[in-house]
Amino acid sequence: MARRFDTVSFLSDLGVADETVGVVKAVVRDLAPHAVVLDLTHEVAPYDVRAGSLALARAIGHVPSGVVLVSVDAGPAATRPLVAIEVAGGEGVLVGPDNGVLAPAVAMTGGAERAVLLTDPRFHLPSAGGLFVTRDVLAAVAAHLCNGIDLSELGEPVDPDELLPGVVPLPREAPGGGVVTDVLWIDRFGNCQLNVGPDDLAPWGDAPGARLQLTTGDVVRMVERSERITALGAGSLALLTDPYGMLAVALQRRSAAEELGLSVGDQVTLSPLPEGDRGPSTPTPVALRPKT
Amino acid sequence: MARRFDTVSFLSDLGVADETVGVVKAVVRDLAPHAVVLDLTHEVAPYDVRAGSLALARAIGHVPSGVVLVSVDAGPAATRPLVAIEVAGGEGVLVGPDNGVLAPAVAMTGGAERAVLLTDPRFHLPSAGGLFVTRDVLAAVAAHLCNGIDLSELGEPVDPDELLPGVVPLPREAPGGGVVTDVLWIDRFGNCQLNVGPDDLAPWGDAPGARLQLTTGDVVRMVERSERITALGAGSLALLTDPYGMLAVALQRRSAAEELGLSVGDQVTLSPLPEGDRGPSTPTPVALRPKT
Amino acid sequence: MARRFDTVSFLSDLGVADETVGVVKAVVRDLAPHAVVLDLTHEVAPYDVRAGSLALARAIGHVPSGVVLVSVDAGPAATRPLVAIEVAGGEGVLVGPDNGVLAPAVAMTGGAERAVLLTDPRFHLPSAGGLFVTRDVLAAVAAHLCNGIDLSELGEPVDPDELLPGVVPLPREAPGGGVVTDVLWIDRFGNCQLNVGPDDLAPWGDAPGARLQLTTGDVVRMVERSERITALGAGSLALLTDPYGMLAVALQRRSAAEELGLSVGDQVTLSPLPEGDRGPSTPTPVALRPKT
Repeated sequence: MARRFDTVSFLSDLGVADETVGVVKAVVRDLAPHAVVLDLTHEVAPYDVRAGSLALARAIGHVPSGVVLVSVDAGPAATRPLVAIEVAGGEGVLVGPDNGVLAPAVAMTGGAERAVLLTDPRFHLPSAGGLFVTRDVLAAVAAHLCNGIDLSELGEPVDPDELLPGVVPLPREAPGGGVVTDVLWIDRFGNCQLNVGPDDLAPWGDAPGARLQLTTGDVVRMVERSERITALGAGSLALLTDPYGMLAVALQRRSAAEELGLSVGDQVTLSPLPEGDRGPSTPTPVALRPKT
Repeated sequence: MARRFDTVSFLSDLGVADETVGVVKAVVRDLAPHAVVLDLTHEVAPYDVRAGSLALARAIGHVPSGVVLVSVDAGPAATRPLVAIEVAGGEGVLVGPDNGVLAPAVAMTGGAERAVLLTDPRFHLPSAGGLFVTRDVLAAVAAHLCNGIDLSELGEPVDPDELLPGVVPLPREAPGGGVVTDVLWIDRFGNCQLNVGPDDLAPWGDAPGARLQLTTGDVVRMVERSERITALGAGSLALLTDPYGMLAVALQRRSAAEELGLSVGDQVTLSPLPEGDRGPSTPTPVALRPKT
Repeated sequence: MARRFDTVSFLSDLGVADETVGVVKAVVRDLAPHAVVLDLTHEVAPYDVRAGSLALARAIGHVPSGVVLVSVDAGPAATRPLVAIEVAGGEGVLVGPDNGVLAPAVAMTGGAERAVLLTDPRFHLPSAGGLFVTRDVLAAVAAHLCNGIDLSELGEPVDPDELLPGVVPLPREAPGGGVVTDVLWIDRFGNCQLNVGPDDLAPWGDAPGARLQLTTGDVVRMVERSERITALGAGSLALLTDPYGMLAVALQRRSAAEELGLSVGDQVTLSPLPEGDRGPSTPTPVALRPKT
């Protein structure tokens, strides 16, 4: 039995500098007036499938039941097919390109249960010329799903195992001990989310107050595991569990990204401090120099 | 008989850097709680009536029945009266300044059927001081229209023929053959929409694979008519029918605007290639040098 | 008796470059599907409590009955408690940090009637790790208020007189006569709102056409009191009553902020012109040179 949805959560790389996103939302409202469009973000960098997939993965646990419309790298140069993927016992359907942008979110909801290619033109808009698939296919299909059209009507089924997986970098063991991580996301305040959780550091000290060495490029600094950034002195780099359950490097009321020169995708190595430096925190931050 | 509307589509040059747009939407929600405000865009450049009129014209075919609230160059320095224009047998009412910003969209819906000046203060907000017409007049009037107030109650009628026309540049014949076009719009991905449709090129080759010469400033390049950007080799400039039915210059996963140094309003001449160069496409892009 | 609300007006310093604001709105929609979230703005500069409090104060008179969710400087480094404040006979509840950001808006609605600290975890989201209070506390509490939970259930009561006051700068008498003002806000069009109203200038000429001397840094210019910017010649600096009832320095279709080199927080002194220069306006702007 198909269910009727009333929320379309919308994430894209379309920006808001022009009316493009508005037109997509207009299509949903026109075809499914009862549905509310919830903008997640439209500022994923153009074509950045990885960043889009991570933003969606962070959001998915809070998105209401309904349709999730994702348009990242879905422009005229896109070569991947469009799909709809049902998850969570039918509580949600993700529609978007099968280019990996949906994969981490799908995994976090328990995996794809059914999937189809969006090949049936009965559920698309007639195009005014060239196809704008986010408007003409994804938005129209999202609206039809809200109206109770079943996934199976939208096109030919596809084996969920054949969907393109996401590419999320995994942390690696560091040559001299410790772990090489990647910066997944830098928020507006300069906090740098890494691709490791608290458990990954357990072997060499994950309790609050534990101190570690952070290395990125030529920069070597001490970071301290903390439950709250306010527990440390101003200027001290903290390693916090962030609101998404990952570790993040943070500074009190300043941008850790600026302080360390970090950008998304940069590598950060976390390793045990040389023996004598471990132990409870001191209020004075310690900056280690690179070995020259 | 007046009808009750439940959507206000909103396009402006007000930006979102402060609470201005939010306040306008608050007024609509306060006066007409059942109505949904659909943001088309608020990033029209300040005072840019032409850009606003083009964005609205691109959107209008997808906007749901209801009120369309347009605020471009409607600040304290504006000298044009505010109007409401009924279109499409009463399915839509556009409210905004009579400065040309509404004209292309009105034309695309079949033309103005009734129009009034927004002169009746019963349907405006009392001002806290200086007038902010988008909040105090346009938003209030949009809400009253949603509540079923008829156009005729909003102020004195105005002859639709007296409304200010829009100024959209027309393509011109090029001196040596071909057509001089203008860049109407550059989207987030750098695709450059021209003010010509596919039919305008028919005399000298509009079939996929037809090759033309593109000249802008000192740049002379070959472009190829194509149905899909992916049909061409990377680096090849394509001339596509865009999702709005106009021709656009595009590059695969790169910005054609950057490649060609184009800005909105720039001229682009399309002309037949010198004889021997015509014919089906080759995978290698050909860059013609300017004659020096 | 608690009332059920259906609007959450949302103002923050969270930006829209990522999915953060979308996630907060998703939480409200998930817990209170009948409620509409009205975005006031999310572009308050990070940590800028003063700018946030002024934006909220400008908006509050137009915000519909309901909940007002404010997140400015509410990140992990924030040390102030979170509060809910009931105003206007229960017509509105403001939730946010007790850091002064709510204070001017609360005052404008007539003052706090009841207030509580948001200490009861029954109305918060379980965190995925570190706390993101806007999502896990403020959004959840806003939704519960929409669902009819009474303020008194959300946590321990706090005396409204103990809430942190806002810090809005007051105008000061200028040493040589006149008044020293501060730029509170610069809008998208470059109009500069000052922290004085028309009455503050009454002693030395507030009628339209009255001319005053404006001094900021090294710049000395004539400004003219006007009801409409269009009443003056192009290039003439006007002192208008703005749509919020405050005086603003404006230029016709140009940015007064750029012309005068003004930023938010800068001082502007308004003083009587030297004797012979007063009187009705002339169409030619007069630029006075700084005394060297």
